[in-house]
Amino acid sequence: MTISHRVGPLFTDLYEITMGAGYFARRMMSTATFSLFIRGNSLQRKYYVAAGLEDALQEMEISRFSTEDIAYLKASGIFGDDFLDYLKSFRFTGNVIALPEGTIFFPGEPILEITAPLIEAQIFETYLLNSIGFQTLIASKAARCIYSAQGRPLIDFSMRRTQGHDAALKVARSTYITGFAATSNVLGGQVYGIPISGTMAHSFVQAFGSDYEAFKAFAEIFPHNSVFLIDTYDTLEGARQAVRVAKEMKVKGCVPLGVRLDSGDMVHFSRQVRKILDDAGLEDMKIYASSGFDEFKIADTVTKGANIDAFGVGTNLGVSADAPFVDIIYKMVRYQGRDVRKFSPGKITLAGEKQVYRVMDESGVYQQDYIGLRNETVQGSVPMMESVMQDGKIVRPLPSLQAIRDRFNDCFSGLPEKYKALDAAESYPVKLTPGLEMLQK
Amino acid sequence: MTISHRVGPLFTDLYEITMGAGYFARRMMSTATFSLFIRGNSLQRKYYVAAGLEDALQEMEISRFSTEDIAYLKASGIFGDDFLDYLKSFRFTGNVIALPEGTIFFPGEPILEITAPLIEAQIFETYLLNSIGFQTLIASKAARCIYSAQGRPLIDFSMRRTQGHDAALKVARSTYITGFAATSNVLGGQVYGIPISGTMAHSFVQAFGSDYEAFKAFAEIFPHNSVFLIDTYDTLEGARQAVRVAKEMKVKGCVPLGVRLDSGDMVHFSRQVRKILDDAGLEDMKIYASSGFDEFKIADTVTKGANIDAFGVGTNLGVSADAPFVDIIYKMVRYQGRDVRKFSPGKITLAGEKQVYRVMDESGVYQQDYIGLRNETVQGSVPMMESVMQDGKIVRPLPSLQAIRDRFNDCFSGLPEKYKALDAAESYPVKLTPGLEMLQK
Repeated sequence: MTISHRVGPLFTDLYEITMGAGYFARRMMSTATFSLFIRGNSLQRKYYVAAGLEDALQEMEISRFSTEDIAYLKASGIFGDDFLDYLKSFRFTGNVIALPEGTIFFPGEPILEITAPLIEAQIFETYLLNSIGFQTLIASKAARCIYSAQGRPLIDFSMRRTQGHDAALKVARSTYITGFAATSNVLGGQVYGIPISGTMAHSFVQAFGSDYEAFKAFAEIFPHNSVFLIDTYDTLEGARQAVRVAKEMKVKGCVPLGVRLDSGDMVHFSRQVRKILDDAGLEDMKIYASSGFDEFKIADTVTKGANIDAFGVGTNLGVSADAPFVDIIYKMVRYQGRDVRKFSPGKITLAGEKQVYRVMDESGVYQQDYIGLRNETVQGSVPMMESVMQDGKIVRPLPSLQAIRDRFNDCFSGLPEKYKALDAAESYPVKLTPGLEMLQK
Repeated sequence: MTISHRVGPLFTDLYEITMGAGYFARRMMSTATFSLFIRGNSLQRKYYVAAGLEDALQEMEISRFSTEDIAYLKASGIFGDDFLDYLKSFRFTGNVIALPEGTIFFPGEPILEITAPLIEAQIFETYLLNSIGFQTLIASKAARCIYSAQGRPLIDFSMRRTQGHDAALKVARSTYITGFAATSNVLGGQVYGIPISGTMAHSFVQAFGSDYEAFKAFAEIFPHNSVFLIDTYDTLEGARQAVRVAKEMKVKGCVPLGVRLDSGDMVHFSRQVRKILDDAGLEDMKIYASSGFDEFKIADTVTKGANIDAFGVGTNLGVSADAPFVDIIYKMVRYQGRDVRKFSPGKITLAGEKQVYRVMDESGVYQQDYIGLRNETVQGSVPMMESVMQDGKIVRPLPSLQAIRDRFNDCFSGLPEKYKALDAAESYPVKLTPGLEMLQK
């Protein structure tokens, strides 16, 4: 495990540091509050799943400018020595409230708010947008896949096509949060303790020169963990060779887990292959499928009656291909005791320190949300954001991945079907409280 | 700089290691050749820019399973001790030929071919696909931005929305390769030695409470490096306040670099702002623009007569939003002296060890390419792939970023206009040599 999760404070846009130098020169060290939220109404996403908070809090807690970092900034010629001296002892000392990871939320709602000396709140802007934005993007896409698979296990196969290696790790984690069963990403398994999954590629079959020889060799080496990839030459013939090997194994008391389809018409082949397996008395062998799956293709194959037991979900999930970014922003909402906003065309933000209030019925079904002031009382609602950092320290142990999965699961059962549809889902009602609205006048 | 560039051999799909265990058990250590290429014809991309080779070669040269890695694999319960012992001394010992970074290439052409003992060639599949795929994706998108900017400087502003932190770094490098002037990414500047750029965000103006106070403070602190963001409250009024501060600075002998527009109608505002600056005798101040730019929006604003001197290019570039992945694959083409291929529906690959031959006219203009056998002679052509690794060692010092920029620039001038159009570009002619075609029978 040679990868570092931490990037340090130079993982930032230069303007965060030049602004910091400006604030330092003017001694503008007063407290500011910034709000992180997803803007607007996306056609593709009606709800989001909060993810990435753990990374953000850990980064903020330990982030320091190293001697090397200071030397680099000095060599840039942009900054004076006074400011560089200040950066040597820079650390985050502020407070953070946030939606816990796994929480479902909606456009416009704050995911996180930071209250800290202006310069500290500013320096981490870029990291927060990047890390929470991307992990939320992927968790939200993954939730849609979980929805369309209707209980069939999903496996993250995306790492070869994610946008870099950090993305591959974050996809493994973000998909697991929403209920994925496993990942093919070995490093992801090591780093996060997620179950790993994978058996063979086409090259394995090619190296042996025939389905039969390849399957037989694999089954002998992994008698309890064999999934045969059957489409290297001819899918149905591959299925028959899988049967041949499975029968030889059965004699020895082992049954392969199943076969994998990776090309062609998934409905047609899965049904044909199921019949071949069943006719051979191999009802326990599963059919795994990969090849361009996302929530739409999963829903389509399930609806058309494909006989697929589990899906490997790759590229389209790993880059969120239909919507490869979220319009996430981080805006100053309060400074020096004043609530502030900006008025750039099309980019108006809501002033004030906020909280998200969720109204549910007695069985926990979501009715509507309010964005309100931090300490308002909204009748019959639950406040969703929690205090997670005080004076630069994480306030309580971070939840386990299992606890985050459980939270997502609870949230997802609370969200009515009409907001979950893949296409043309309704927009969940989110209103401002009178108190917050008043503040915008 | 706490980020690690190296990920180690566990950055791989589990099946690469289970296959490896299979080969090890059967003592299948013969040499294989794998070919890395982009499949099919994308509607959005008619040409690609090779990028990511440096990372790949460095990773392959030093990659070793650590004690911790072996312990993790052992704990998975999947692997036997013999194989784990073998992994302890695993290293890459093979040969690599590749298109140098910055080279323009076309769908179907090999970017890289690896010849190595089967298991070694297999283990790095996932890393190669991920790293070269993503960097090539971004360099190819960046080349399109360079094309539409017609010589105006471009700055990478994407890091807040890239898919993770590794992506942000790779975007800084991949865009610089194609001729971007700078990046906002400070860590990218530190790691790669790329010029960094950035001045202020809206929050800076908000913290001061007025354009004038914010611009004045900034100008006093950075008299030679000021770009005023003028759209926090009202763009034209912001421009007038920029003029006011610029005149005050001029008296002291400093002129701000310019102003930045970040919202609204870029054609309209850039022309109005230009007039305000010119009327004040500030012809030297530049107009920078950001806000959703990509090759299409750059071309559109340039065509419509916007008065923009330089563009900050962000999200759409950083995730290659119109085409967020390349269909890059890595296929076995030769094993144990046999040329091999697979026949999965829609996924046929070309057998044999290859070379790309480019035919140019006497002034260096590209005429057509051939994909041929490794040691063929193709009349009047230049072989494009070079030997870059022998016996697991990088054969010569890797080119500097400047040398890669120069190579890209040469290639790009060689590519005729009709293949560069943003929409409906022609497909560049790529044929197979008779020798390679014969091999496929």
